[in-house]
Amino acid sequence: MKWKRSERLVDMTHYLLEHPHQLIPLTYFSEIYSSAKSSISEDLTIVKETFEEKGIGLLITVPGAAGGVKYIPKMAQQEVRQIIEEFIIELGHSDRLLPGGYLFMTDLLGNPELMNRVGKVFASAFSHKKIDVIMTVATKGISIAHAIARHLNVPVVVVRRDSKVTEGSTVSINYVSGSSRRIQTMVLSKRSMKSGQRVLITDDFMKVGGTMNGMKNLLEEFDCELAGIAVLVEAEHADETLVDDYYSLVKLHEVNEKDRTIALSEGNFFSKGEKLI
Amino acid sequence: MKWKRSERLVDMTHYLLEHPHQLIPLTYFSEIYSSAKSSISEDLTIVKETFEEKGIGLLITVPGAAGGVKYIPKMAQQEVRQIIEEFIIELGHSDRLLPGGYLFMTDLLGNPELMNRVGKVFASAFSHKKIDVIMTVATKGISIAHAIARHLNVPVVVVRRDSKVTEGSTVSINYVSGSSRRIQTMVLSKRSMKSGQRVLITDDFMKVGGTMNGMKNLLEEFDCELAGIAVLVEAEHADETLVDDYYSLVKLHEVNEKDRTIALSEGNFFSKGEKLI
Repeated sequence: MKWKRSERLVDMTHYLLEHPHQLIPLTYFSEIYSSAKSSISEDLTIVKETFEEKGIGLLITVPGAAGGVKYIPKMAQQEVRQIIEEFIIELGHSDRLLPGGYLFMTDLLGNPELMNRVGKVFASAFSHKKIDVIMTVATKGISIAHAIARHLNVPVVVVRRDSKVTEGSTVSINYVSGSSRRIQTMVLSKRSMKSGQRVLITDDFMKVGGTMNGMKNLLEEFDCELAGIAVLVEAEHADETLVDDYYSLVKLHEVNEKDRTIALSEGNFFSKGEKLI
Repeated sequence: MKWKRSERLVDMTHYLLEHPHQLIPLTYFSEIYSSAKSSISEDLTIVKETFEEKGIGLLITVPGAAGGVKYIPKMAQQEVRQIIEEFIIELGHSDRLLPGGYLFMTDLLGNPELMNRVGKVFASAFSHKKIDVIMTVATKGISIAHAIARHLNVPVVVVRRDSKVTEGSTVSINYVSGSSRRIQTMVLSKRSMKSGQRVLITDDFMKVGGTMNGMKNLLEEFDCELAGIAVLVEAEHADETLVDDYYSLVKLHEVNEKDRTIALSEGNFFSKGEKLI
């Protein structure tokens, strides 16, 4: 069956969106649509221009016999700012205040549409870097890690506090948690990563950065390299931060339990000078 | 700026795919594209036919002033079978065998493309049911829960083994784990669910169903209703299963540690008579 251009455009858009960061040979499309490569090229030009115009992402064409087309999710700067603004408003509601000055964020981490957008923000920021794995620590970072991973097309590994039989052989390290200065343990399945892989670490919340630093140390045990750190909310604190070179979307300055107010601002995402579209 | 049909089709496809199970008024599209509603209707017919032809999903049109269009992810039966077959082959590799007859599945649960497809399988099966929340238990069910949730556009709640300060007030229950017959505890943040909500429970693995049964009991504490149970792998066992009316993709029959063989078959997904496209 021969496909019309309009039908090809719909199906091609779906296919590209489902296969980010994957090189798709033009022959793949010309075969399933029984269409000439020249028609497919014209289709892709339309998709490319629309993706760029609407801030959906980039379509990169690799020429040659081993070439093809690759969709790179890339969010427009304006949309990133909008997500951050919405997030600050949502997080600033006084009913999120918990005893001890903590913020209730679990509902946001369980919101698939929000997580999908946050994942695309970080995937956009790291789209030009070589990333092989996304690492997070159980439990709350998992939804962000998967959201980023889906847009970068790389696997997620989850560090745990305890060893489980279903993880097989594990590597375990001790680290000092940032705020409480207690010795803690983290465990990762030995099969999770291969030596030499480049790893993006992510979590929902970071204060001094003890957990992040623990994950960084764990990377060394696997002979892996740190490719970047992505944090949803960082909290202001008096001590020195244990990791640098991280991206945060939102910064928590102060929680006043008496007045029930929460002071938040934009994180360092833009001030770090990340170039988006 | 007036948009051409070809550009509208690309952008519309992206927008619909990003907003599953959401009613989008035609005026939304006619305004952003500065196009007549009649043109938008014609566009949507092309999208609808292509989505159905390629097994991407359904496009449902709701007529009237409060009407619009809704994308329902719905996977073709053939693709579901293919996913199950691939999964059985992948899971059957002898190097997945762990001491005690367990299977190493962590890498599969961390594979975003596979999880996305598995999520769409279950979202397709439950697309005609009213579902308000997806519930799972930490840690390994989280990636499946989020994958289903994204296709159904509903939030995820994660049951934990222990209470954390960041969860706020919690509801805790005791339950008997299926295989070991030990008393265990599960905890869920009080704010997670409202009474009357319909909940789809999911997990990566189920044997006797003790954990599933625990989550079912937890639903009662919240005055919520069970809408369904979705399991990636169920294991054969001699005892009576504690929950019924679940869907599984794969069934694990036997693990032979001496010969290093794993016997797997299709789960009950199709035999339960689920009607897909």
